[in-house]
Amino acid sequence: MTLPESKDFSYLFSDETNARKPSPLKTCIHLFQDPNIIFLGGGLPLKDYFPWDNLSVDSPKPPFPQGIGAPIDEQNCIKYTVNKDYADKSANPSNDIPLSRALQYGFSAGQPELLNFIRDHTKIIHDLKYKDWDVLATAGNTNAWESTLRVFCNRGDVILVEAHSFSSSLASAEAQGVITFPVPIDADGIIPEKLAKVMENWTPGAPKPKLLYTIPTGQNPTGTSIADHRKEAIYKIAQKYDFLIVEDEPYYFLQMNPYIKDLKEREKAQSSPKQDHDEFLKSLANTFLSLDTEGRVIRMDSFSKVLAPGTRLGWITGSSKILKPYLSLHEMTIQAPAGFTQVLVNATLSRWGQKGYLDWLLGLRHEYTLKRDCAIDALYKYLPQSDAFVINPPIAGMFFTVNIDASVHPEFKTKYNSDPYQLEQSLYHKVVERGVLVVPGSWFKSEGETEPPQPAESKEVSNPNIIFFRGTYAAVSPEKLTEGLKRLGDTLYEEFGISK
Amino acid sequence: MTLPESKDFSYLFSDETNARKPSPLKTCIHLFQDPNIIFLGGGLPLKDYFPWDNLSVDSPKPPFPQGIGAPIDEQNCIKYTVNKDYADKSANPSNDIPLSRALQYGFSAGQPELLNFIRDHTKIIHDLKYKDWDVLATAGNTNAWESTLRVFCNRGDVILVEAHSFSSSLASAEAQGVITFPVPIDADGIIPEKLAKVMENWTPGAPKPKLLYTIPTGQNPTGTSIADHRKEAIYKIAQKYDFLIVEDEPYYFLQMNPYIKDLKEREKAQSSPKQDHDEFLKSLANTFLSLDTEGRVIRMDSFSKVLAPGTRLGWITGSSKILKPYLSLHEMTIQAPAGFTQVLVNATLSRWGQKGYLDWLLGLRHEYTLKRDCAIDALYKYLPQSDAFVINPPIAGMFFTVNIDASVHPEFKTKYNSDPYQLEQSLYHKVVERGVLVVPGSWFKSEGETEPPQPAESKEVSNPNIIFFRGTYAAVSPEKLTEGLKRLGDTLYEEFGISK
Repeated sequence: MTLPESKDFSYLFSDETNARKPSPLKTCIHLFQDPNIIFLGGGLPLKDYFPWDNLSVDSPKPPFPQGIGAPIDEQNCIKYTVNKDYADKSANPSNDIPLSRALQYGFSAGQPELLNFIRDHTKIIHDLKYKDWDVLATAGNTNAWESTLRVFCNRGDVILVEAHSFSSSLASAEAQGVITFPVPIDADGIIPEKLAKVMENWTPGAPKPKLLYTIPTGQNPTGTSIADHRKEAIYKIAQKYDFLIVEDEPYYFLQMNPYIKDLKEREKAQSSPKQDHDEFLKSLANTFLSLDTEGRVIRMDSFSKVLAPGTRLGWITGSSKILKPYLSLHEMTIQAPAGFTQVLVNATLSRWGQKGYLDWLLGLRHEYTLKRDCAIDALYKYLPQSDAFVINPPIAGMFFTVNIDASVHPEFKTKYNSDPYQLEQSLYHKVVERGVLVVPGSWFKSEGETEPPQPAESKEVSNPNIIFFRGTYAAVSPEKLTEGLKRLGDTLYEEFGISK
Repeated sequence: MTLPESKDFSYLFSDETNARKPSPLKTCIHLFQDPNIIFLGGGLPLKDYFPWDNLSVDSPKPPFPQGIGAPIDEQNCIKYTVNKDYADKSANPSNDIPLSRALQYGFSAGQPELLNFIRDHTKIIHDLKYKDWDVLATAGNTNAWESTLRVFCNRGDVILVEAHSFSSSLASAEAQGVITFPVPIDADGIIPEKLAKVMENWTPGAPKPKLLYTIPTGQNPTGTSIADHRKEAIYKIAQKYDFLIVEDEPYYFLQMNPYIKDLKEREKAQSSPKQDHDEFLKSLANTFLSLDTEGRVIRMDSFSKVLAPGTRLGWITGSSKILKPYLSLHEMTIQAPAGFTQVLVNATLSRWGQKGYLDWLLGLRHEYTLKRDCAIDALYKYLPQSDAFVINPPIAGMFFTVNIDASVHPEFKTKYNSDPYQLEQSLYHKVVERGVLVVPGSWFKSEGETEPPQPAESKEVSNPNIIFFRGTYAAVSPEKLTEGLKRLGDTLYEEFGISK
């Protein structure tokens, strides 16, 4: 089957993108590789002056039989060295990026070896439906999102966001003068019918939204994931009203088996044979990228949650047409992700191979399933047993939320003036006093809220008194996690005057 | 002597800076370090899941007796390993940044160990005249300059730039809708009297310039350096007309001894004892930063030219007040320079120590002096001997320029319509055909030019027919450099119809 070409969405570009002229210096940079040309064009220092001759590292070895977090020993370790230069391909069997190239100017899109690994990975994960897609290395999704705003938005432009979303992403837009318009969400993420209604009722003449920004999997802060069938409906709405979908997917590979409360049932599920790669791939949520026939989706992936945040390395997948202005922007901002990061991530991944990387992702899924279970078990054990306290077990990501009906607080009217956010603020301080930090949901509320927040599981009922707290099971050990959630529970018992 | 506090220049901030709200999540991040708090606040993965246990590297060893570019062997090499964690300080005598911290979120300003090294280095190089200065890690000067524009400028704002300047820096401003106003330069850089005149004649009511962007040392593209006494005059003008000075100094440590044409004299100068650190420090140009009593100067330094471009690491020095909005912007863009880069640069520098780093910089100066001499020798040898071809030997940086009086070309009027830029374009193609790449000066012309370009050594005479080409001696070996400049000379002889 021949795949179609992507559409041209350049009419959505920002004034800045349209004004960005290609640097004349870039028109001659290809001559650097021309053996007939003596290149006196650019200020490229000699590699002899780079004071690093080689780089060696110890990494865990696939298939990580003791788990991805097991201490490294001789048995489960691969040791490798990346050199400044290689005589020829045979001297570089692992396809390492030579330090001399990684540490030089050039290759703003990312080093070819790394991009090739990412392209192969992309083909394994997503079933792309158009021809001219590509990937571009970024300094992580924070950078990629900020760049997306610069590429598309002018001051006064409008974008659609989930009603609660990652505060830093919202703040980034707002600082740029971009208006964030909230879209209602529930336990299955963005509600297509409500999104359609938002668009149908869009004020005539008002600037139309250029983008929908979404964190589809393990959403931050709600922990929810958009159900596959909803993604199709949302994509169709994007087509109808002609906006792009930006899927920010740092938690995509932290998808887990659903939470099973009953311990015996859970053990049964876990004692089944370790999932193989095919099962694993089949179990992953369908992506907006896989639905996209036009190049309407911009996907942002990151190594922050699957390898380490400090790599400051991620990538955008989208149509070549759409990646072009990102590259021009990068040439004036980050230039490229740091060379050392590209060298080391590429060296590790190329030695693991695509299969070894899937082993790693499977291992990660296993770890996060255990941590999620530990957190949700503790919440069920320590939180007051009442309809006013709703626990939302996530199927992906790092976050869980607890919804609280503020109106059941005995002093809701008297002390808190029937204002759920006054109670939220007070509860936040009480839990911190008791020695645990969870984050108030209102910190993630998008500006310009048009209706009350609809956190997870408040599906059909829109109760304006529902507040929530976000917690993570990522950052601490199971023991600390359990103790922390006990402290949260104790605070709620006390504050709501419920006897155990 | 008690130093004064810096002034508050926040009235120069951009709308974006003023709109940028501190992330509420940052208000609780300090609790991550609190032993009494169980931190379920942020999505920080466990360090156990970072698949790099340690990092080893071979670096050259101070004082680099065979030169900084000498091949590494057992004798002149230091080998070291940075670990994921250290039991205590005694296990980490070189003050390494543990991988577990470098690869985690946090420390957006840069890792403390690296910042401390940079602060100590700053004290050695600059004599700061106010109290509350600090440094902030960046992803290099391209990133730092783009951030500077975001921090200070709105669309329609005006900045002052050198009449010819780094094209990418100009393009960055222009894409953001910031107007670049050119300031005349000559062989000693910005001409204070002309700058004063520009400001005196500023159209009343027109937006005043917020910044002066300058590359004071080894300017790109002209290769010129601002004389010390001019810096004082320029600083006073900045005070009088209340704009900030942004000094972009990637080439600061590529300062060289002046070019000596006579070989015997040159040998004599070079056979004098190797410069010691005190002499070296005394020989360095005075900086705008050192003159600054108010926090009016923003200095951008980079490791790109002194260690390697691919480190993507640099720093800004300025008042704490001015660094604050940069940090907030970084939190929404790069977050921080990549962890691996910070680990490795810090590990190398901390083992070299401040003295070893000065040895490195001295070695670099030596290498560039040789390369510069090689280039200028070849230019004098191979270029037509005529007043129409002016060679400008730089005292710093990577670039030389050749000024050409276009009007002496026999077909200037007939074939090129008396347009120097038509000739420049034609010459560019001819030299590339002959196998050498040098860059036309017009590529660096700032938009909105108000008077003809005044490249180096056209000091008092403003000849509108002078064009120039920029070359670098950085990127190739002496043999190639010589051959390349012979090709340039041959082209000029032929094109201008001069017989040898």
